[in-house]
Order: sequence, then C-alpha cells, then structure tokens
Amino acid sequence: MEILTNRDEIRAWAVENRKAGHSIGFVPTMGALHAGHLELLRTSQTQTDRTVVSIFVNPSQFGPAEDFNRYPRVIEQDKHMLRQAGCHALFYPGVAAIYPQHFQTSVTVEPLGSDLCGRERPGHFQGVATVVTILLNLVRADQAFFGLKDYQQFVIIQRLAQDLNLESKIVGVPTIREPDGLAMSSRNRYLSQEDRQRAAAIHAALAAAKSAFTAGEKRSGRLEAIARRILTEASIHRIQYISVRSATTLLPINTVHTDGVILTAVKVGETRLIDNMLLNLPDQASPSS
Amino acid sequence: MEILTNRDEIRAWAVENRKAGHSIGFVPTMGALHAGHLELLRTSQTQTDRTVVSIFVNPSQFGPAEDFNRYPRVIEQDKHMLRQAGCHALFYPGVAAIYPQHFQTSVTVEPLGSDLCGRERPGHFQGVATVVTILLNLVRADQAFFGLKDYQQFVIIQRLAQDLNLESKIVGVPTIREPDGLAMSSRNRYLSQEDRQRAAAIHAALAAAKSAFTAGEKRSGRLEAIARRILTEASIHRIQYISVRSATTLLPINTVHTDGVILTAVKVGETRLIDNMLLNLPDQASPSS
Repeated sequence: MEILTNRDEIRAWAVENRKAGHSIGFVPTMGALHAGHLELLRTSQTQTDRTVVSIFVNPSQFGPAEDFNRYPRVIEQDKHMLRQAGCHALFYPGVAAIYPQHFQTSVTVEPLGSDLCGRERPGHFQGVATVVTILLNLVRADQAFFGLKDYQQFVIIQRLAQDLNLESKIVGVPTIREPDGLAMSSRNRYLSQEDRQRAAAIHAALAAAKSAFTAGEKRSGRLEAIARRILTEASIHRIQYISVRSATTLLPINTVHTDGVILTAVKVGETRLIDNMLLNLPDQASPSS
Repeated sequence: MEILTNRDEIRAWAVENRKAGHSIGFVPTMGALHAGHLELLRTSQTQTDRTVVSIFVNPSQFGPAEDFNRYPRVIEQDKHMLRQAGCHALFYPGVAAIYPQHFQTSVTVEPLGSDLCGRERPGHFQGVATVVTILLNLVRADQAFFGLKDYQQFVIIQRLAQDLNLESKIVGVPTIREPDGLAMSSRNRYLSQEDRQRAAAIHAALAAAKSAFTAGEKRSGRLEAIARRILTEASIHRIQYISVRSATTLLPINTVHTDGVILTAVKVGETRLIDNMLLNLPDQASPSS
C-alpha cells in the first residue's frame, strides 16, 4: 500500500493511475477505522480499479467544545486494517498539507448545512464541505464513497458536488451495524458499558418508526412520536432532534409519500450519536444507486 | 463560433477539445466587451489552442442597491466582436443554468473578500468566488485569464484556485487603458462627458504615486497621500479607499519593499470606478508570469 502525505503526492498518484487507464475510487475518513469504513473500501474495490483511502482528522469541522483533541487516532492499526483489506493507497496528510499558510477559502452549503446536526454544531458542515471539496479535487476519483450513517453529510456533499460541478460521482453506502443494531461509529468507543447497551435503543426507535411506516403510517409527526417514545423508555432523554424529512432535499415533510428519511441525534452519556433510516418502500431506489 | 448555453454543452465542448489534444483557454466575462476583454482573448489565443469566452451577468455578485438590472447587455454586439476576433466558442448561459433549483453552495475567501472593495460591497466577492469556481470546474481549462484591473478579484481567484486545487492556471492580464489613462471598463459608459474627463485623474493619481515610488519614496502613507491629492484636485471627493498593499497577499504594508500595489475605488458621479498600479521595480516579475 502506497502512503502519500502531501498534495503533490496524491495528485501524482491519481494522474499516474488515470494515465494507466485505471478507474479510481476514493474513501475519505477520519481514521479509527471500523467495519463501516471497510464496507466503503469493499464497495469501492468492487466498482473501481484503484482505491485510495484518506485519513485526516479535520480540525475545521470540530467546534471549540468538541472532541477534536481526543478523537481516536490509531494510525498503525488503521494502516494494518487497510493493508489486510488490499487497499492500494493511503492519503495521510498533516494539517499544513491541507491548510497551507494563507489558506482562506471555505465552502458553504446553506440552508442545508445549518439544519439538523448543523444547529447543534455551527460551522461543522462548512468544515466538512471545505475539506471534502479539497480532497475530491486532489483525487479527482471516478467515484467517492460516503457512509449513509452520516446522511445529512451525504446529502450536502452530493449537493456541493453537483453545484460546483466536481468530477467524482458521490456514492452512498448503507450503514454497517453491531449485532444489536447500533450503527458503527468511531465514537462508539467513548461509551461506557451501560451507555453502550442503552445506545441500541437508537436503532430500535428508528426501526419502530419504519415498521409503522411500512404498516401504513405516513404522518411525520406520528412516526417521530413512535421513535421518541422508544428512546425515552431507554432513558435517552437528550434528544437533539428526531425528524422525518425528504430523503433527497432533507426539507421537512408532513407526510411521507415516496422518499422519506427519519434522522436523529442524541446524547448518550457525554457521547453524541447520530443515526437514520430510509422510509421508502422496498421497490424504490436507494440514494446510492 | 460555437455558442453553448448550458452546463452539459460547455462540459461536452471542453471534453471534446481535450480529447482532440487541444489546450484550452478560458476568459470569463460579464459581456459588454471592450478592448480589455479582447486583450484577454488575444492573450489566451497566443497561449492555448482553443479559447472559450463566457458571458454571464452574475446576479449573486451584485448588492441589492447595485446596478445588476441596468448593467449593459449587448449580446449581439458582443458576439460580433468575438467572431471578428476569432474566438472558438462562447458560453452564454441563463441564470437557471448556473444556479439550478435547490442550488445552495457558496465559496468564500476570507478575510481577503471582505477587505477593500469587499467593505463597500458585502457579499460581492462571495458571488464572484462561487461563480468562478463553477465556471472553472465546467471548463477545466489549462489556463484562465483575468484582467488585472480587478486586482483584488485576481488575487482572490488565485487564492481559491490554489486552496481548492482547481485545475486551471490563473493568469493575470495587464489593464488596457484609454488614451488619457482611464482603465477600460464596461461601466465607463455610465459616465457623463464631464465625469468621463474627470475620471482620467484616477490613473494620473496612481501614476504619480508610482513615479514617487520609482524616485525612492517607499512609505505607503506618503504614496497614498500623493495619489489622494491628485484625486481631490480633480474634484473626485468620494474616495472609498486608496491603499498600498502587498501585491501577493493584499495585506497592508507600511513600506513597499519588493511587491507593492496601490489600489483605489472612487465614485465619479454615480459611477463606481476602480483601478490599481503595481509598485515593483522594472526587473521584477509581474503577477501574470
């Protein structure tokens, strides 16, 4: 596995592979890799000739009171996992490689970026949109793969890639879950044993809403109430939001007709967790297709 | 001359020309073409195989009290000029082609974009940075040509192209002037005959500062005072700014060592005019090289 650490190296890697006729897949991450990331890598490997994974804990997407400093950094373990999985290249830049002296450009997607998670985390999606634009322009992959666990992020990145005419096709990859349903996340390791057990209620709450939807309940308010009750019963009281939205625009909808998604962010102990579930009927296309 | 009016057409034109092995030059404009624009085109023609000019009066770079509605639109005349000059293609999109439904991405360069002209025109450079990013990504030219008359714009576009890793090389082209020194601008046609005569003092003021600089005066405050006096003597009293800056970063400098520029924005009658002059010694490189 090649390890690239600055802008020139990743650009050169991509140019060289394109010249050789290889299609390129790109999986941007913040490291602390888990089965969800490996699923992104596997998806890329089935659809492209050469995959590059990036590991960059992006300071500009963390708020001042957030977990940038304690965000898990386990680069040797990550490298081992990527090698085992047959990854072709790792892009592992330092902060100065991404944000050199005099850097002052930012990319904003509004109002999408100040809704839902953006309400609780002002500036977060500007940080995400900016670093993803930089990374996508460095790699110029044929396809770039993002986890649907971060559904709002996925919609924002699709939006900016289309608005700014970036080259890569943005592909969403379904969430990988623990056996009890908890979505895989690098932040799960923050949870105490007790909180870890309670956290399973997040997926259960969304699944209950989905069951009600499949059984015929289309009213957003009712679906949200069903999910909220299950969270509360599990003593998850700090619900930042639980909301049914259009799956394509993320705008609020009163009734789910064809393309709904229910999204939630909660605090379990001191750990902020997010998850979502698509509310579409089985014969409908998923956003990754 | 091919005329392209939407995103798909310009993308296809660029892909086709690249495939044919042609290098591409791009000259973005707002139309109402004059000798300054033709100089951009000529420069592009000498350095690339195929040139596309865009004409798009970008609403998002005009403030609510500004001249978007009355900005000169003379498309037939512009087409004629471009054909005469041997331009290969014109990109002439409508607003909905650039900003389709649900568009919500913007590009900001801060603090550069809120200084100088950005103080008087809040949001202006965000509009410029966004549309230029879109246009550059649509064309993916080898080189894109911008007039140095809009010097702050040039520095901002260089900055964002480097920060976001856009493909095109950003080239600055020296200002073309009327015989009395007034910088060519589509807005000059707003001037009354009397104001048109007074406006020659803008260049005279900058030239006087440059003469003083060449004669040994390096203090920014003194150079600004020399220029200001000439403007005032010509009864140009509404001086929005007159400022000596670093030519590379546009940061304020007390003394011009190697790379200065003196920039000004004034109102003559109701017309806002800008101009600038590099304060470098004859053997120093210009920003276009």
